[in-house]
Amino acid sequence: MNIRIIQIGLGPIGLGAVRRMFEHPGVKVVGAVDPAPDKAGRTLSELFDNESVPGWTKEIIVSPTLDKALSAAEEKPMIVVHTTGSFLSNVSSQIIELVENKLNVISTTEELSYPWWHHPAEATEIDECARKNNVTVLGTGVNPGFVMDLFPIFISGVSASVDSVFVERIVDAGKRRGPLKKKVGAGITVDDFEKRKATGKFGHIGLVESVAMIGAAYKWKLKKITDDLKPKVADSLYESTDVTVVPGNVLGIDQTAIGYDTEGRERISLHLEMYVGAREPRDTVRLSGIPGMDVTVNDGTPGDIATVSAAINYIPLVIGARAGLKTAIELPPPRWFGFNDVMV
Amino acid sequence: MNIRIIQIGLGPIGLGAVRRMFEHPGVKVVGAVDPAPDKAGRTLSELFDNESVPGWTKEIIVSPTLDKALSAAEEKPMIVVHTTGSFLSNVSSQIIELVENKLNVISTTEELSYPWWHHPAEATEIDECARKNNVTVLGTGVNPGFVMDLFPIFISGVSASVDSVFVERIVDAGKRRGPLKKKVGAGITVDDFEKRKATGKFGHIGLVESVAMIGAAYKWKLKKITDDLKPKVADSLYESTDVTVVPGNVLGIDQTAIGYDTEGRERISLHLEMYVGAREPRDTVRLSGIPGMDVTVNDGTPGDIATVSAAINYIPLVIGARAGLKTAIELPPPRWFGFNDVMV
Repeated sequence: MNIRIIQIGLGPIGLGAVRRMFEHPGVKVVGAVDPAPDKAGRTLSELFDNESVPGWTKEIIVSPTLDKALSAAEEKPMIVVHTTGSFLSNVSSQIIELVENKLNVISTTEELSYPWWHHPAEATEIDECARKNNVTVLGTGVNPGFVMDLFPIFISGVSASVDSVFVERIVDAGKRRGPLKKKVGAGITVDDFEKRKATGKFGHIGLVESVAMIGAAYKWKLKKITDDLKPKVADSLYESTDVTVVPGNVLGIDQTAIGYDTEGRERISLHLEMYVGAREPRDTVRLSGIPGMDVTVNDGTPGDIATVSAAINYIPLVIGARAGLKTAIELPPPRWFGFNDVMV
Repeated sequence: MNIRIIQIGLGPIGLGAVRRMFEHPGVKVVGAVDPAPDKAGRTLSELFDNESVPGWTKEIIVSPTLDKALSAAEEKPMIVVHTTGSFLSNVSSQIIELVENKLNVISTTEELSYPWWHHPAEATEIDECARKNNVTVLGTGVNPGFVMDLFPIFISGVSASVDSVFVERIVDAGKRRGPLKKKVGAGITVDDFEKRKATGKFGHIGLVESVAMIGAAYKWKLKKITDDLKPKVADSLYESTDVTVVPGNVLGIDQTAIGYDTEGRERISLHLEMYVGAREPRDTVRLSGIPGMDVTVNDGTPGDIATVSAAINYIPLVIGARAGLKTAIELPPPRWFGFNDVMV
């Protein structure tokens, strides 16, 4: 097997994906795109500070545009791993460009994980374009895309009935990379938190999409989905090597999305806390119904590595799928895209 | 939606499936088959002792054969729920007959959940026949089919690498129906346990298939799969309304299947205990790798109701699938086949 890939976007997730593809005998990166001035024009090796990497990373020069990457590629790519942004409005033209070039797309764009609720027009456009070009597009990641949506959906596969869904994810942002601490506002004041919140671009992106995916899987008619973001405030001093939070300031986010049925009843409740110093990080999935189900991921599903892995693991499933914009509920269950000495 | 179904096999699981289909507005049973003298010729209502059931169950007379059920059906069925036995050698001719009648099949036959390891000839025959007749066949259930195979596979969807898999399922047979207590040997002597074991038809069926499914999902080359059955022996008196176990006699089964790689290393280890009086019933899934994953189903996934539910829940997925003999790793993730007042 030799699946040829172009990596679009070389932030932490994109570089993580390239790093994993280093080792994978089944895939080969044949191009990379990132217009950032500190990336375009450099080799992939340079972006890893020339640490031990295979030969091909020395030869691949990061292109500022897709067109240039396609011209430079020695072999025609079959699929793209796309990691450039969270918001569909910012990336949908990129996705369309990829699809028009007959490339399958796996994207970590949070709003693409289940775009049919908030972004039906963009979703329809991408879906039609993908069908026309006979390629498949999938949005994936650990969250949205797995822990708080696909996981409760999967668990319900052995349910006789589901009355309501509760998922809680507690993440210790102190154990995550610096950008995540910043992303959750660790160390800022509550006032600054509220200002950032007012931009509409702060907090976890994708909780609404997770609710919508669950509703779609169960064919529930939801009247509305709310998304409520609050600061997790320190009541004692938090100190670590790279962040200090004084009492009264912000440790991170406390976010809840709820899906209401047409009678106004809460049916789906997703609660996410990501903050520095979180104790007992874990994921909890509870289904009320027959039978009730209560599942715990002890220590919680990791973040970045799981998002990178989801993107890589879906490669063979997306290549094998029917054309169109798909969501995780339409493809086969994700599984590790194996590569080791016991492979067949 | 009106999916027309024939139910084949009216033991506890088959009757459980019919009972669920009572309430489901999306499906309708148009026939039922069971040759047992106490079933054939009676109506479905009679098999439920005429307890409150919908009108159609009064009209459907259980047929002794598929042909008679097809002749009697007022509407042509699209799919069959098949619950007649655990061993593929006993049921494969039934499956072939169904497929030749252009019926999709969902079967709870344990050995059909992943038949490609132990029964490749039967699997190939069913697969080819299903493709020729443009229908889909799936083996499913809670175990095999979900807890000890599809679940760890699913969890690995966010793994960068998997080194080994461990699943443990502890079931309190005391809380399950009488046949299960009998099935696990509760109350018999260790001598009798060994005699039953020697028949090769005793213990949990499907553990080997679960190991094989995991291996296939990861494309691991397994050298061999072992399946070791031991009695769980009482060290103190166990008493309940329907079974008594004196010390030294059997509470139930303690079974382990292991998949070894070509170097002889244990890669997949599945451990199942089903016995009366089990404390803290639970399912545990652990993946060693990057990242490690540790998931617990608190109180464990229930048994019969989960098997019935898996069979019903897969109905729309099997109908929508490509033709052939499929396993759960090829179809979309199972999810509750919703039906309630909040349905779209």
